[in-house]
Amino acid sequence: MRLSRAFLPTLKETPAEAQIASHRLMLRAGLVRQTAAGIYAWLPAGLRVLRNVEQIVREEQDRAGAQEILMPTIQSAELWRASGRYEDYGKEMLRITDRHEREMLFGPTNEEVVTDIFKTYAKSYRDLPRNLYHIQWKFRDEVRPRFGVMRGREFLMKDAYSFDLDKAGAEHSYRQMFLAYLRTFQRMGLTAVPMRADTGPIGGDLSHEFIILAETGESGVFYDAAYESTDWAKADVSTDDVGGLKAFFERVTTNYAATDEMHDTAAWDQVPAERRREGRGIEVGHIFFFGTKYAAPLGLTLAGPDGTTVTPEMGSYGIGVSRLVGALIEANHDEAGIKWPDSVAPWAAAVLNLRVGDAGTDAMCESLYAALGDQAVYDDRNARAGEKFADADLMGFPWQAIVGPRGAAAGKVELKRRATGERAEVSPEDAIAKIRGG
Amino acid sequence: MRLSRAFLPTLKETPAEAQIASHRLMLRAGLVRQTAAGIYAWLPAGLRVLRNVEQIVREEQDRAGAQEILMPTIQSAELWRASGRYEDYGKEMLRITDRHEREMLFGPTNEEVVTDIFKTYAKSYRDLPRNLYHIQWKFRDEVRPRFGVMRGREFLMKDAYSFDLDKAGAEHSYRQMFLAYLRTFQRMGLTAVPMRADTGPIGGDLSHEFIILAETGESGVFYDAAYESTDWAKADVSTDDVGGLKAFFERVTTNYAATDEMHDTAAWDQVPAERRREGRGIEVGHIFFFGTKYAAPLGLTLAGPDGTTVTPEMGSYGIGVSRLVGALIEANHDEAGIKWPDSVAPWAAAVLNLRVGDAGTDAMCESLYAALGDQAVYDDRNARAGEKFADADLMGFPWQAIVGPRGAAAGKVELKRRATGERAEVSPEDAIAKIRGG
Repeated sequence: MRLSRAFLPTLKETPAEAQIASHRLMLRAGLVRQTAAGIYAWLPAGLRVLRNVEQIVREEQDRAGAQEILMPTIQSAELWRASGRYEDYGKEMLRITDRHEREMLFGPTNEEVVTDIFKTYAKSYRDLPRNLYHIQWKFRDEVRPRFGVMRGREFLMKDAYSFDLDKAGAEHSYRQMFLAYLRTFQRMGLTAVPMRADTGPIGGDLSHEFIILAETGESGVFYDAAYESTDWAKADVSTDDVGGLKAFFERVTTNYAATDEMHDTAAWDQVPAERRREGRGIEVGHIFFFGTKYAAPLGLTLAGPDGTTVTPEMGSYGIGVSRLVGALIEANHDEAGIKWPDSVAPWAAAVLNLRVGDAGTDAMCESLYAALGDQAVYDDRNARAGEKFADADLMGFPWQAIVGPRGAAAGKVELKRRATGERAEVSPEDAIAKIRGG
Repeated sequence: MRLSRAFLPTLKETPAEAQIASHRLMLRAGLVRQTAAGIYAWLPAGLRVLRNVEQIVREEQDRAGAQEILMPTIQSAELWRASGRYEDYGKEMLRITDRHEREMLFGPTNEEVVTDIFKTYAKSYRDLPRNLYHIQWKFRDEVRPRFGVMRGREFLMKDAYSFDLDKAGAEHSYRQMFLAYLRTFQRMGLTAVPMRADTGPIGGDLSHEFIILAETGESGVFYDAAYESTDWAKADVSTDDVGGLKAFFERVTTNYAATDEMHDTAAWDQVPAERRREGRGIEVGHIFFFGTKYAAPLGLTLAGPDGTTVTPEMGSYGIGVSRLVGALIEANHDEAGIKWPDSVAPWAAAVLNLRVGDAGTDAMCESLYAALGDQAVYDDRNARAGEKFADADLMGFPWQAIVGPRGAAAGKVELKRRATGERAEVSPEDAIAKIRGG
């Protein structure tokens, strides 16, 4: 993408309404623009990050055996009456009346709809277990939306729903998602700590929130440093290994972790002092086991293995995909702007041409840009070097390939790593290899 | 995907509500399930097709220089008041009141929102031309939704919006999309004929519908056979070549093509009789040039090149992405089921195991499935061969790799091409090579 032709606007001033770093930086770096209170349009750079986050979530869901579907945004009120949640949900639910005066709503979550879909097709225990997920826009009519996409009204969520024959099966499904979540967040460069949680309006028996650390987080958190040092991708356990996964889950959750709501000071005192971590956190995922809470009222029953009728045991598993974009910035920024982790960056590099019109500089930049293709943006604007440096820092590309007339003449590129500020003079070939290597 | 664990349900009976082939087959093949009138959930196979269609649309938009953004589904009524369309749109617009009694709506199209976004950032003629598109769910509250996803209420649309300095620039943008559309539909194996169209509620001066032929189409169509024989991918014209693209556009549109609404019998009589084609068609795309119809009332003005102020000339360009899935089936099916074109098929092949439990058959199937990976589904169910054949024909995988004990013993696979019914006994290696080759 050539910046001279791109729609990648940046703002010099910080919009007054933004109270936290991620909100400020998302507006200044041109990732999103608010179109109504708590509702955002995603501009090209923001959308690329959103899609990268979504793709990591998708890959880890698929890897754990979940299957992707896509449920609509608009739901009928009927199923919510059957589950008993239509009134409970209160004013956060965006209620809609269509032209035929039917009561509809913009889905805030999908337990009812997915249970009803599954009921159409699943006839016997041989159709279990299944885990269906989708990544779709949701709406919660927050009374006071704020913090940009962190607490917006229209937001993108991944929600998965598992169906099992019995409680033991459902617990295995729960642990599969538990492991998938640890891997998902780690691939984005985040330390997400699973904490026992209250089940809230979803209901149920067992629940964990996944919380990443950030000063602006909504909850206080207390956890054992063990969570920071584990590489979950290398966790020697398969999501298909029932016994191994159970042992893994028990081992991980032995380490203390709790939000202030669930904090247990007696247990906390047992954690060795040097391993105690306190701070504030942002919830980026939430998983629930709730048994037959939805299957029973919605009439989901199957033929059991022994001629009986069974009601499947269910769980649901959410990840705030659009919220993660904000959370990633909270965890990765400095005064100058965003520092995208390689795995989610909108482009791996910016090629900065410091003297547009100089033949040698233009030639080197064009050849770098041609080699990097869709991995790079090319700042070919007629603009001051200072403006190009500032925009590249603000937009947070992991690499900056800086080319001026002197470097070009010497066959050298100045390669800057945004996360650390390290700089090196390298050949164009080395620059390309480093950028491609992440 | 192993069918024994997959959520790929098929129905034996045709649901009573389905009047046309695509609707019947989408329900029977488990592509979608209706969740409310005119509102559908996409099940795994349907979602994969939808994503393939979406990706072809995206690639051709990118190739033509358009840039992807994502606007929200819920819009404020304010901008629609400013453009004068809030009242005009009538009952097809799903109107919503939020908890603070603000008037909102579920966007049926995005001219107002995109103009307002562009206005925030575009300051001068140097910010032109730009073409911004998104692929997002829309809602039109059809009084009588029918034909499944062909005329649903919640539907996925690609809509692009171009901004140019003057009318000549806007006409070039229009022609860029015209060529991109021809290429897009052709990549899906469809003959889409561009027809001069009425501009309807979008308004404007110039408009073409892109129509594919199908007996169940909503309009009668008349066109020159020249449209059937052209390979647009090979059209020797770049979307950046202003003069060449204009000449191309004029050459193509010289050939007669019109819906019954716009039909001109005098001009039709000039078409040589052997080149006259009549039939019914389905609209899958619609492009508009409408000048300053939205920019002017919404106050989008920029600094011109000579110190003046200019109001950009705009166009908008839609493709019905979810509708295309239905249209593709209308154009590609027989009595037994769907015949997916290779470019959009949910999976390239089904591996049919005719004797689950037979060691040789199982081994050959497993090795085919391992080699094909995500390109294949593996029918490993304990089911009769007849059921497997019927389901594979119904779901329309382009290839079926059929393995029974006799073939396995002889080292042979029966490879069936769904589109033609051709069958051949081949080695597993040849089967894999053919399936991978499309």
